[in-house]
Amino acid sequence: MEHYEEHHKETFRDSALEVAAGVERPPVVNPHYKRAKRRRLSADEYVEGILAGNITVLSQAITLTESLLAEHHELAQRIIERCLPHAGRSVRIGITGVPGAGKSTFIEAMGGKVTGLGHKLAVLAIDPSSERTKGSVLGDKTRMETLVHNPDAFIRPSPSAGSLGGVARKTRESVILCEAAGFDVIFIETVGVGQSETAVHSMVDLFLLIQISGAGDELQGIKRGIMEMADMVAINKADGDNVPRAELTKRQFLNALALFPMPESEWKPRVYTTSSTKGTGLTELWRGIEDYLKFTKTNGYFDRNRSRQAKYWMYETIDSELRDNFYKSPRIEPLLAEYEKRVLEDKISSFAAARELLDRYYSE
Amino acid sequence: MEHYEEHHKETFRDSALEVAAGVERPPVVNPHYKRAKRRRLSADEYVEGILAGNITVLSQAITLTESLLAEHHELAQRIIERCLPHAGRSVRIGITGVPGAGKSTFIEAMGGKVTGLGHKLAVLAIDPSSERTKGSVLGDKTRMETLVHNPDAFIRPSPSAGSLGGVARKTRESVILCEAAGFDVIFIETVGVGQSETAVHSMVDLFLLIQISGAGDELQGIKRGIMEMADMVAINKADGDNVPRAELTKRQFLNALALFPMPESEWKPRVYTTSSTKGTGLTELWRGIEDYLKFTKTNGYFDRNRSRQAKYWMYETIDSELRDNFYKSPRIEPLLAEYEKRVLEDKISSFAAARELLDRYYSE
Repeated sequence: MEHYEEHHKETFRDSALEVAAGVERPPVVNPHYKRAKRRRLSADEYVEGILAGNITVLSQAITLTESLLAEHHELAQRIIERCLPHAGRSVRIGITGVPGAGKSTFIEAMGGKVTGLGHKLAVLAIDPSSERTKGSVLGDKTRMETLVHNPDAFIRPSPSAGSLGGVARKTRESVILCEAAGFDVIFIETVGVGQSETAVHSMVDLFLLIQISGAGDELQGIKRGIMEMADMVAINKADGDNVPRAELTKRQFLNALALFPMPESEWKPRVYTTSSTKGTGLTELWRGIEDYLKFTKTNGYFDRNRSRQAKYWMYETIDSELRDNFYKSPRIEPLLAEYEKRVLEDKISSFAAARELLDRYYSE
Repeated sequence: MEHYEEHHKETFRDSALEVAAGVERPPVVNPHYKRAKRRRLSADEYVEGILAGNITVLSQAITLTESLLAEHHELAQRIIERCLPHAGRSVRIGITGVPGAGKSTFIEAMGGKVTGLGHKLAVLAIDPSSERTKGSVLGDKTRMETLVHNPDAFIRPSPSAGSLGGVARKTRESVILCEAAGFDVIFIETVGVGQSETAVHSMVDLFLLIQISGAGDELQGIKRGIMEMADMVAINKADGDNVPRAELTKRQFLNALALFPMPESEWKPRVYTTSSTKGTGLTELWRGIEDYLKFTKTNGYFDRNRSRQAKYWMYETIDSELRDNFYKSPRIEPLLAEYEKRVLEDKISSFAAARELLDRYYSE
């Protein structure tokens, strides 16, 4: 059976770029024409709106975090700072899986289940544009037709452009704003082919890998190391003729996972079979997630992990800025290719090359 | 059976510190007493000696790379630069495994096999002092009684102190010097419990994981991700009563490895059973290593990997220096704890904290 997501990939990719285009204005033909300026809310008004659970205000605040204008950025930071004390009271779940694994339909089905249990769900995504061609996720809300009309769900596509670090920052800031707005379950979706998993893993409480059962090479498409991050695996599309294969895949995963060393959480990863179309397995999976939360909150891992993540993002932001500042420096950038070449031709050692470049950088 | 390495851990840890202490001088009680200064060789003399395969000169040159004195460091860099064109013609093999897996005895046995085939073998180690307590490796050459007297083998313990980055640099420089001295097989040993595997993996052509068969929890002691680096696994101590268990462990590993996606080398990791005491399996393992080399040299991975490693160490050295310069800056260091605290107390977001610290750093 052909998969909806795959079939319409092109369409969705285009519309994804439209949806996420953000704060830019269309060109004005008549230069004397002035657009009526939308009244900007004050930081107070933003915070008030968010804490009252106003989705429109939440949406606008997230757009601010994604803006490249310094003025927007400062306003966003003031809002985030005031939302921080009201954030954190949620479960943050990372969801990954290769394109075609059925992430969108899974989120649609699981989202219905979760909101049905009385939760408020925000669905975010990390999908840097550089990885977009490999299979866009959450590019178009229309792939979640039911969830998008669910009053207890808020779906926000990934920022449309920027480095992984930038996108990750924006997503993490969105998490804070969503939590302050009362969303107590956060899904962060990512496509299972790149470094974005590591970024997502560093901002969630639980990492869920969506898999489909296939011809035994299920893991071929997944980047190495991703399986080791998984706290839960859902073998999706376990319906109809697929059920026996899904069960077999489940057993293979359990065998493989058993060989991994115990993760720091001391949680033994679980594998579930699910069907987004039939709705089977979702209740069991959600119970599993609740078990995980209870387990990690009891043994202290949950809090320890969150603290570590908060520190991680401070240091990661610093490190990536330091690198940018060096490698994009006009004194350094023009020299890099030449030094690489000399290193590859054994004219200079890697360490001596580094030393010379650093000396130049610091010489001013 | 109790393992020699485990039993004498304390003893070896102490002696490791002695052996590796390097260039520091003992305190002089009488301040007027002058030690006779050993005549230092010139760069020319060092290079000549190394290229002639003089082990004493090689050893002294390695000691220079480990020295903290600027004068030694410059001399070392000159020597390394001139050795570079003569380096590279070897196979670099990373060897890891948890303490107790029998790495030392394995290297002793395998080293005899390799030199018996006409190769010249250098055995180096990466074992940063911070990880020393978890199980020192190569701390004392007396654990390799035969190999240490083998004229075709050169054993050099890990530098005794320094950050992982520093130890890694020194080890990589030692590789260059050893290769220039005619050693065509390099073993780089590391203890299987820390980040040092990643460092070793980034400087070798082939990564070998030493395992013992046990009660099914063989992988518990290994850091996550290490198994995924392995091109070869040797199930060691496969002798006597252990043989059936070793065979079972081998099958478990093969099953687990089959579930991993194909590595970039396109080499399917192999698992061997070996016995260091009986000498069984070593010939097969070495043939496997030769197969790997032939395979990766034919498909181009070998060269591609070496080039990438050379670039990696240039960029890694730069990055770690940039971080040191920031985090150890007198303007920044005193503030870090306070900012961490504010982040953990949700007073400021991770990103805003990073921004403020960076602004301070760049403000001068």
